[in-house]
Amino acid sequence: MNKEAKISIIGFGNVGSHLSKALVNNGFTIHQIYNRTKIDPSKFTGSQNVNVINDIELLDCHANVFLFCLKDDALAPLLTKTQFTDQLLLHTAGSLDLEVFQNKSKNYGVFYPLQTFSKERNINFHEIPICVEANNSSALNNLKDLASKLSDKVYAMNSEQRKYLHLAAVFAANYTNAMYGIAQEIAEAKNIPFEILRPLIKETADKVMEFLPKAAQTGPAIRNDEAIMNSHIKLLDEELKLEIYHLLAHYIKQKR
Amino acid sequence: MNKEAKISIIGFGNVGSHLSKALVNNGFTIHQIYNRTKIDPSKFTGSQNVNVINDIELLDCHANVFLFCLKDDALAPLLTKTQFTDQLLLHTAGSLDLEVFQNKSKNYGVFYPLQTFSKERNINFHEIPICVEANNSSALNNLKDLASKLSDKVYAMNSEQRKYLHLAAVFAANYTNAMYGIAQEIAEAKNIPFEILRPLIKETADKVMEFLPKAAQTGPAIRNDEAIMNSHIKLLDEELKLEIYHLLAHYIKQKR
Repeated sequence: MNKEAKISIIGFGNVGSHLSKALVNNGFTIHQIYNRTKIDPSKFTGSQNVNVINDIELLDCHANVFLFCLKDDALAPLLTKTQFTDQLLLHTAGSLDLEVFQNKSKNYGVFYPLQTFSKERNINFHEIPICVEANNSSALNNLKDLASKLSDKVYAMNSEQRKYLHLAAVFAANYTNAMYGIAQEIAEAKNIPFEILRPLIKETADKVMEFLPKAAQTGPAIRNDEAIMNSHIKLLDEELKLEIYHLLAHYIKQKR
Repeated sequence: MNKEAKISIIGFGNVGSHLSKALVNNGFTIHQIYNRTKIDPSKFTGSQNVNVINDIELLDCHANVFLFCLKDDALAPLLTKTQFTDQLLLHTAGSLDLEVFQNKSKNYGVFYPLQTFSKERNINFHEIPICVEANNSSALNNLKDLASKLSDKVYAMNSEQRKYLHLAAVFAANYTNAMYGIAQEIAEAKNIPFEILRPLIKETADKVMEFLPKAAQTGPAIRNDEAIMNSHIKLLDEELKLEIYHLLAHYIKQKR
């Protein structure tokens, strides 16, 4: 993918904005940005003077690459308003099939960055794993070429694998954050500030950068320490948290 | 606590070994180390020539401070074999009462470092929150003085708060690691290496170093994205994981 390729971004949410920034940082020019509502992309695109449109009818369908960074259910309706021939169409979603682009272009694929993005946080895009898939080998080569200019970690993956990976990511990120939230609630109910838990959270994540989770498992459940678990169960007065405590203790014990 | 104080370590597991290292690194001399089985502490105590004993009868009960770093149920039986008067007795456990030391000495307390320790990993002890509690104000002052020489984060906390904090830590660390484990299993079943999830795990933890978990929550459950959640549920063929998926989705949705 040469740096003169005309790349357009469709949807400027968390993914679209960070991806735009990564493109600009790696010497690409962004041809057009479409977003349903008015945006100022300059925080992410820097000094590049990008053509921003809020009306999809104004999209230049002759650019070379289109990166769709939309909510899953927004993509198909929007595609009906566009007319492509052989442009490389890419979406960035974990759970959407490749074939959502079928009959829209001769070349299409998936560019799925496995990361949690928020506008407030800077992210080193080169460290983000990018999962790629395409409908033909030439599209795949173009896509791999583009992805490898933005990230050091490019993985070819089919749609089924990507769906499972997205599910795994729900546990690794969303449900992990829910654990942090439960910990926060339990601590704050006893006037203990959340900050006291931060070094523990950091070390727990750092451990699995080096080891696999199974080797890193600690705590009363893996030791089958019934005395401690019973004392914890007595402290939990909320039914839902109690159920979660039991179920996860059971999961961990089962893996011993 | 002056640096000539005679400090002894009872139990040289993960906590005892890291605590010994922190003492040595901060200019303290370790008077004695007791451990049930034979150990070589030199990896943690460096060039200090420490008196190591494996028989509790050989414990010099006239040292100034005793740091008990034992499994919860090992402390009380071991205490029956010792004879103290006013020495400062401290345990390092999250869920044990202060009063386990009652009648054993005039001065006692709790020195609870909130961290997950493993022998293989170096840890900056100065960043570990230490929760302290003592039976009188002079013991508490001595304890705070000692703790503040080892860590920049010392919190006074009563036994009830400490028990809830220990429970919170189970969620923040042990159950978080279980989430990593589930993610690993789902990925590996489809020949996806765990390493692809590591940047996501790291960023998820890093986010709550800056924000509170509630503000950092993302994913299909918090968006109440039924389409994605239903597609995930179809992928989960193991009953236990399915139950965990449902229960945590429910917890997150409830917090919207």
